[in-house]
Amino acid sequence: MKTRIGIVGYGNLGRGTELAVAAAKDMELAAVFTRRSPESVHILTPNVPVVHVDEIEAWQDKIDVLILCGGSATDLPVQTPHFARMFNVIDSFDTHARIPEHFAAVDAAAKEGGKVGMISVGWDPGLFSLNRVYANAILPDGRDYTFWGKGVSQGHSDAIRRIKGVKNAKQYTIPCPDALEAVRSGSQPELTTRQKHTRECFVVLEDGADAAAVEQQIKEMPNYFADYDTTVHFISEEELLKEHAGMAHGGFVFRCGKTGQQKEHTHIIEYRLTLDSNPEFTTSVLIAYARAVKRLYDEGQAGAKTVLDIPPAYLCAQSGEELRAHFL
Amino acid sequence: MKTRIGIVGYGNLGRGTELAVAAAKDMELAAVFTRRSPESVHILTPNVPVVHVDEIEAWQDKIDVLILCGGSATDLPVQTPHFARMFNVIDSFDTHARIPEHFAAVDAAAKEGGKVGMISVGWDPGLFSLNRVYANAILPDGRDYTFWGKGVSQGHSDAIRRIKGVKNAKQYTIPCPDALEAVRSGSQPELTTRQKHTRECFVVLEDGADAAAVEQQIKEMPNYFADYDTTVHFISEEELLKEHAGMAHGGFVFRCGKTGQQKEHTHIIEYRLTLDSNPEFTTSVLIAYARAVKRLYDEGQAGAKTVLDIPPAYLCAQSGEELRAHFL
Repeated sequence: MKTRIGIVGYGNLGRGTELAVAAAKDMELAAVFTRRSPESVHILTPNVPVVHVDEIEAWQDKIDVLILCGGSATDLPVQTPHFARMFNVIDSFDTHARIPEHFAAVDAAAKEGGKVGMISVGWDPGLFSLNRVYANAILPDGRDYTFWGKGVSQGHSDAIRRIKGVKNAKQYTIPCPDALEAVRSGSQPELTTRQKHTRECFVVLEDGADAAAVEQQIKEMPNYFADYDTTVHFISEEELLKEHAGMAHGGFVFRCGKTGQQKEHTHIIEYRLTLDSNPEFTTSVLIAYARAVKRLYDEGQAGAKTVLDIPPAYLCAQSGEELRAHFL
Repeated sequence: MKTRIGIVGYGNLGRGTELAVAAAKDMELAAVFTRRSPESVHILTPNVPVVHVDEIEAWQDKIDVLILCGGSATDLPVQTPHFARMFNVIDSFDTHARIPEHFAAVDAAAKEGGKVGMISVGWDPGLFSLNRVYANAILPDGRDYTFWGKGVSQGHSDAIRRIKGVKNAKQYTIPCPDALEAVRSGSQPELTTRQKHTRECFVVLEDGADAAAVEQQIKEMPNYFADYDTTVHFISEEELLKEHAGMAHGGFVFRCGKTGQQKEHTHIIEYRLTLDSNPEFTTSVLIAYARAVKRLYDEGQAGAKTVLDIPPAYLCAQSGEELRAHFL
């Protein structure tokens, strides 16, 4: 029997999840749940119902894993514990600093319901976290480096859009090639914020806005831009929509460590993602872990889990025997 | 209490394991076992006994995990099942084609003894296998590429040394930069053996040997060299020992996959290792997994395991709470 997937929220992540389910031979989409009027939501998969989220309780026997596709700021802190009482759930909660409290809330709810609630699945947190943990366990004497991009930062784009006189904006985070090379050299450099990433902004002004004043406000904005070398380009809304609508992203995780009697040997572990579509890749990770959640539940486990708790083999449809023969 | 490690075999891997134990705050070296005369083996750690391997049974209550540092060709197929009846064991068995039978033999022995027997731990098999499995689970529609090097291939160096007239030799496997770039471009190229790696040989001749004949024999050797672009350098033994004694190695695992309604989005996952010392890095991986083996045993598990069966958190001395707060 195929694993039956439910999706809550049909934005970029919801659509990506739908595509990832279609690409997985052992899964099927059972329903999409929305807060909007279901008639207004048009999904790609034929013969799958769109249901108002208020009616989700009736679906408990028809769904194996519910993928929560809301945002980390306000949706998931409420939704994940709420739904973890009724369903096995996975989310991509990515507010790093609040993961411990989110984990505790989901753990309590999932244990109450006898379900598995997996949080913070994606690439960072997610695959990047895995690589940090493996690399730290293997090279205890070393140093970690994470770089993001080139890709759009939603938070920084939003910050620019809040400036008076700005109609629309996109901000790219770009890792500095010199910093990447310094890390790859094994010299374990001390890198400042400014040395690691640059920021490039594409801004559409309101009619009559003062470009020089907007540029200054961006470049001097504390936390977001003041510590970086920032470039600002003013462009038309037409150009922004045409040239900057993509959702490419990626990044690098490095650990550089030493071994040897005199710590004379240097080792570098590098993990790199180059992604054409951030939401489609993120949801591909979610669906691989949905397979693991189903297995944990079938084994009788309950409570909150993260990627750090899951044996790699649980992500695969193949048997242990097949994996050992073909991938080990 | 610290995890007590035993080492069987004191060659490059044994010495690397000793250093990795010293670097792990939660581990201690209990004993080194050898087939040689124990008096002839001098280890680095003070106050740790070197014991003849015939006396190993008496150490069952004094060792938590035994690290088997023999070779894959003849030592490990016998040693790992033998010791898995008495001890929790880990090996770095790397004959990919024979992993299924080795797994079966170790599984039966370890279950008989109520112990955990972990096999094929290192970087390939090991970390490269992990990356192949994660990447295949996440991007089911895609293609894998593995490159090795730059590093010394023991098997190819041995093959050269068997040629009449050759006194000594080292062979480097080198990934082709053009092939790496083609893979990173996302074009999913079809690559021949010749396009992926080149081979560079440093050869010391016996007095009076015919250099041209040796070079021809190397370059035409089936399986080992005939399918590659091979360069042969004749050097003095002095230069070989001085310039080519290093044990650096490394490599790359890529998966390039597609997502989207029309498979219009390309994603590239790259994992890269650059290692100054192949044996010291390999044994750093072994020691991280020794931590996991101890935990599995303490949970009451028994039988054969591979890296695909182990949750990443089990490799770490830190609690789940600490890992979530600092690494997720």
